Amino acid sequence: MQNTKDYQNMIESALKNYLPQGEFTEQTLIDSMEYSLMCGGKRIRPLLTLLFCELCGVDAKCALPYACAVEMIHTYSLIHDDLPCMDDDDYRRGKLSNHKVYGEDIATLSGDAMQSLAFEIMLSEKALKNVSADKAVRAAHTLSKYCGVLGMVGGQVIDIENEGKNADINILQEMDEKKTAALIKAACEMGCIIGGASDEKIKAASDYAHSIGIAFQIVDDILDVTSTSEDLGKPVGSDNDNDKSTYVSLLGIDKCKELVDTLTNKAIESLSYFESDTTALKDLALSLKNRNN
Amino acid sequence: MQNTKDYQNMIESALKNYLPQGEFTEQTLIDSMEYSLMCGGKRIRPLLTLLFCELCGVDAKCALPYACAVEMIHTYSLIHDDLPCMDDDDYRRGKLSNHKVYGEDIATLSGDAMQSLAFEIMLSEKALKNVSADKAVRAAHTLSKYCGVLGMVGGQVIDIENEGKNADINILQEMDEKKTAALIKAACEMGCIIGGASDEKIKAASDYAHSIGIAFQIVDDILDVTSTSEDLGKPVGSDNDNDKSTYVSLLGIDKCKELVDTLTNKAIESLSYFESDTTALKDLALSLKNRNN
Repeated sequence: MQNTKDYQNMIESALKNYLPQGEFTEQTLIDSMEYSLMCGGKRIRPLLTLLFCELCGVDAKCALPYACAVEMIHTYSLIHDDLPCMDDDDYRRGKLSNHKVYGEDIATLSGDAMQSLAFEIMLSEKALKNVSADKAVRAAHTLSKYCGVLGMVGGQVIDIENEGKNADINILQEMDEKKTAALIKAACEMGCIIGGASDEKIKAASDYAHSIGIAFQIVDDILDVTSTSEDLGKPVGSDNDNDKSTYVSLLGIDKCKELVDTLTNKAIESLSYFESDTTALKDLALSLKNRNN
Repeated sequence: MQNTKDYQNMIESALKNYLPQGEFTEQTLIDSMEYSLMCGGKRIRPLLTLLFCELCGVDAKCALPYACAVEMIHTYSLIHDDLPCMDDDDYRRGKLSNHKVYGEDIATLSGDAMQSLAFEIMLSEKALKNVSADKAVRAAHTLSKYCGVLGMVGGQVIDIENEGKNADINILQEMDEKKTAALIKAACEMGCIIGGASDEKIKAASDYAHSIGIAFQIVDDILDVTSTSEDLGKPVGSDNDNDKSTYVSLLGIDKCKELVDTLTNKAIESLSYFESDTTALKDLALSLKNRNN
């Protein structure tokens, strides 16, 4: 097994290489895409894709286009999320947000092109050298489903529509399931699909993803009130400023921390469906629980 | 052969059915997508996909998901194009633009989800009942390539960056090749791919698409100065107001009309690579030349 750091380096270099290489008339667009894509994110989603593929006994390199695709979808969603007509955030990961550097028009188009590129790389001849067309179709379909109208984007709409409305816990759960967990599910399921896993294993990976996804969102809500702007790379207290219901506002911090523990344990239990060494995925679940940004 | 009107009805009904059916928490998003998708557009792109598929001797129904996907990509681009940070158009096809009805945030997300849905329907189990995974991959890859960073979105960036700069004819050609012709190429090539055409025929379809695509854009430029707001369904003279170079501003109306004739003839010549009846595609090329909106 490769260690997590090796995989992260592999992802960084692949992401950069998937951007068009050379000088183009629309260079500003490519620069803007690169600005947000190569921003030193944690690369959790693509790492999950690679780790699950390897866990299924297939060389993780085969899953690299799918890993990078899910990171591109995540990146495009952040670019659009930061726009003035959405969350209106000037900073992301301690750097100016895309539209503050390139303008709202280019930022909008940059997100659009990033989504197209995600599908392009999953369906390219190069990806298909290592993966059957059946697997490529199934993996790309999985991502399209989880990132779209009843997935990630749907979750963002639920988020927007419930601002200032004191949404209850059911709405919050549906929102986070779609807004956050859906893309993590896509990452884990795609790794299993490329790895040729059984339906039972794909379901277990999806359960793992659900648990760490919801835990991830709760930790985000906790950090928004307990962290510093420096650690977080963005202003703290923004949920409160925006009058949003969060796990913390509905359940309180102690109950939230308990919930994160329970979900992390559930995630680790889901890994029992796999025969190989699941240490890296266990460690990842634990590190997400204990993160400070 | 079915007539064009039958195909257009088939497309209308399929587009509507591809939207999630039922009541969802994110219903506003679905309503917003439906508002722009079911707006009485001309459906030229999906019609091309069906006609080329049939021309290759395969039931056009097999190409329906790919036809609808290209229309969804076209629709998402129009929603984003109309946003205040882009062209800032209040009207589209005589109706309020998406963001004027649903707000900029929902309109942005509506376009995003529409792009995901395009890929979702091309790669769905239902689509794969009639089409091999190899063809599905190749068709969806074709669309992703033409709609993305070096295709449609790239063309929009070239457009934005050259506003008020008196762009020369070379820039204008690259812009229109990407902004307009690329998606028409995707439509025609996908029809041929699903139809199992040879590379030579795919190339001929692509040439046809290039010619009608550029002609289409030149006709748009002509209509922007010669049409009425009522016929056009949007304000006329907007190119001039925005200080944009157009074929008309660079070449004059007479030269433009000549160019449209030449391109339309070239398009029709490209059809000689196909053995079956190409009447519908000839008529389509001619009708695009003679349209008034």
